[in-house]
Amino acid sequence: MTDAILATLPNNIAAIRERRPLIHNIANLVVSNFTANALLALGASPAMVENTEESAELATVADALVVNLGTVSSDLAAAMHLATQAATIARRPWVMDPVAVGALGYRTRLAQDLLHNRPTVIRGNASEIAALSGTSAAGKGVDSVLQPDQVTDCADDLAWQTESVVVVSGAVDYVTDGKDRANIANGHALMTQVTGMGCAATALIGAFLAVAERPFVAAVQAMLTMGVAGELAMKRGRGPGSLQIAFLDLLYELTGEDIVSEARLA
Amino acid sequence: MTDAILATLPNNIAAIRERRPLIHNIANLVVSNFTANALLALGASPAMVENTEESAELATVADALVVNLGTVSSDLAAAMHLATQAATIARRPWVMDPVAVGALGYRTRLAQDLLHNRPTVIRGNASEIAALSGTSAAGKGVDSVLQPDQVTDCADDLAWQTESVVVVSGAVDYVTDGKDRANIANGHALMTQVTGMGCAATALIGAFLAVAERPFVAAVQAMLTMGVAGELAMKRGRGPGSLQIAFLDLLYELTGEDIVSEARLA
Amino acid sequence: MTDAILATLPNNIAAIRERRPLIHNIANLVVSNFTANALLALGASPAMVENTEESAELATVADALVVNLGTVSSDLAAAMHLATQAATIARRPWVMDPVAVGALGYRTRLAQDLLHNRPTVIRGNASEIAALSGTSAAGKGVDSVLQPDQVTDCADDLAWQTESVVVVSGAVDYVTDGKDRANIANGHALMTQVTGMGCAATALIGAFLAVAERPFVAAVQAMLTMGVAGELAMKRGRGPGSLQIAFLDLLYELTGEDIVSEARLA
Repeated sequence: MTDAILATLPNNIAAIRERRPLIHNIANLVVSNFTANALLALGASPAMVENTEESAELATVADALVVNLGTVSSDLAAAMHLATQAATIARRPWVMDPVAVGALGYRTRLAQDLLHNRPTVIRGNASEIAALSGTSAAGKGVDSVLQPDQVTDCADDLAWQTESVVVVSGAVDYVTDGKDRANIANGHALMTQVTGMGCAATALIGAFLAVAERPFVAAVQAMLTMGVAGELAMKRGRGPGSLQIAFLDLLYELTGEDIVSEARLA
Repeated sequence: MTDAILATLPNNIAAIRERRPLIHNIANLVVSNFTANALLALGASPAMVENTEESAELATVADALVVNLGTVSSDLAAAMHLATQAATIARRPWVMDPVAVGALGYRTRLAQDLLHNRPTVIRGNASEIAALSGTSAAGKGVDSVLQPDQVTDCADDLAWQTESVVVVSGAVDYVTDGKDRANIANGHALMTQVTGMGCAATALIGAFLAVAERPFVAAVQAMLTMGVAGELAMKRGRGPGSLQIAFLDLLYELTGEDIVSEARLA
Repeated sequence: MTDAILATLPNNIAAIRERRPLIHNIANLVVSNFTANALLALGASPAMVENTEESAELATVADALVVNLGTVSSDLAAAMHLATQAATIARRPWVMDPVAVGALGYRTRLAQDLLHNRPTVIRGNASEIAALSGTSAAGKGVDSVLQPDQVTDCADDLAWQTESVVVVSGAVDYVTDGKDRANIANGHALMTQVTGMGCAATALIGAFLAVAERPFVAAVQAMLTMGVAGELAMKRGRGPGSLQIAFLDLLYELTGEDIVSEARLA
């Protein structure tokens, strides 16, 4: 399993850079710039479209859809319903990032509603995944009070219930489809002091979904790419400002082989 | 006074990094990323939530609320009314940033309305503070045509009227609660050529309000932190792009003692 | 022609830095921060105001208006109608950036409607300009599938129809008012992997419109400034992250003479 994932990673990175998949984002407004730049740096073609007039139209033709609840409003929620429905009908993969679900009521109900449109992948922190799985485990605002290894059962349950791949981000990321499981020990603690690193991870999953053989593989490869780029960025950066810049440079520079050689995957 | 403010600054910085206060921002959309990153770099936990469904809910539990009028719309204005009312009822401190008040009619009326919910601190440039105090002194768009020392009477008046601490940003910042007054001569002129430096100052005031002994102290300590980080960032940067990055790195790196040793407070 | 444009460039850059023209932006929310920072770095005074309450008021007093369709919604569309009408009545120049026009229906119709308010300049990529001129040439999301030299006839037609200056961005930029034509061979391919470089170009055209002798000259000088800053930024940067930062530094540092000496204008 692990070997197969590492074996296809270089080809999938190359495929993103070659085909430039169109990734439709209904993004978190705070980090839409960073999200678009992360996708561009990796080689994908982001389109940040979140009005109700165009969201379904674009979701039908995009290679993947990324839905982020970070700055949801009633207008954005309407666009999310339209786009995820259109993606499902058009059999396009889509990813959900349930930012701060569990901490605030409106978005918690919205995230549960969106599960009916069957996300291909769900990525959140431990508090968010626990809350979405029905366990009461409120985070503090957007930050988790739990670590992934405390919620593996919740994540497996959620994957079973929804037939989605579930990714729990943290010091060690946990990826599960209820059957296969992976742990990724790459990354650096300072990444949590840059806004939007989690959202960028979700967007990169979208890019890998457009090229990978199956969603579980896409999710693991995206998290490896995030983790390795973040880790190497720390060697160039002095703090959260320069980390963010070096991270974008590295998404552009790193080859699949570079990522495989630094991967800590179990 | 001055000595007491410098004496508690290291402890208050340490308290932010230790307790990670939850700062609820109804932010300026242009600079919400930079604002969130400044708060994260300092050590606080920002949540950028500005929909009408969740703003009151979050304001009730956050350690401080920051309301920025930069990109106000009727939806954001509704969220600001709900959140500031909820914060006042829950006795949570809140800060108002009256961006471009005086230059545009709609937001000038909104800012005056919000004063009824008694901001703990108001931070603006000299044109904005003059306009909010009732003096006619329109700025040019978002930029001030006045310096703080030309509007100290306006600022003192506004502090008296509203029982708020008033901060006037400029080459030398002026902080007043109508009784105590401070001048801060840190900072660098190039900071005005980076969008959102003023908004970041307002957000940092929010972080200090969560830990400081009283609002006047929080405002002065936040402005000192801004000024010293900006000044030292200039030594690393070549222009407004690299200044912004170095500023975030420094908010993360600087100790309270570093800030005290560079402080120019009178 | 070419000589005259290069001859006045240093004076016009100096005029922007001296007069600090107020540039009203109804911006693309993904890149509003980068757009504002590009204008500030060059020396202009940006105001990002896009609510329906204030857009007409500001457009009447601003030195130029920049309208970007990147993240259009029904609210933003209403503000665009109000602001462009107000600018036209007040005889203020305005620039339109038809992001993703041709790829999505709603914004294509909106862009055609806005043409009735007579933009002074229109800047887009080749797919967007072809679509706006009535040729069917859908881009892939926000990215062009054509190069400027494939759509010069479309661009000339559009300039004739609308009495606007039309700028087609690409490896070699093409600028036309239907009579005069210019090609600008500055810039670097990696600029397409930073989100908002095109939007920044449109905004800089706004800044030059506030000071240049006529719109064609403003458009060419702005594209030269973009291209030279991007090209030199590549010498400092390692990838798309550091390119963005160095680009802002260079907009601040470069003199008009620096730009003229690097210009590849035909």
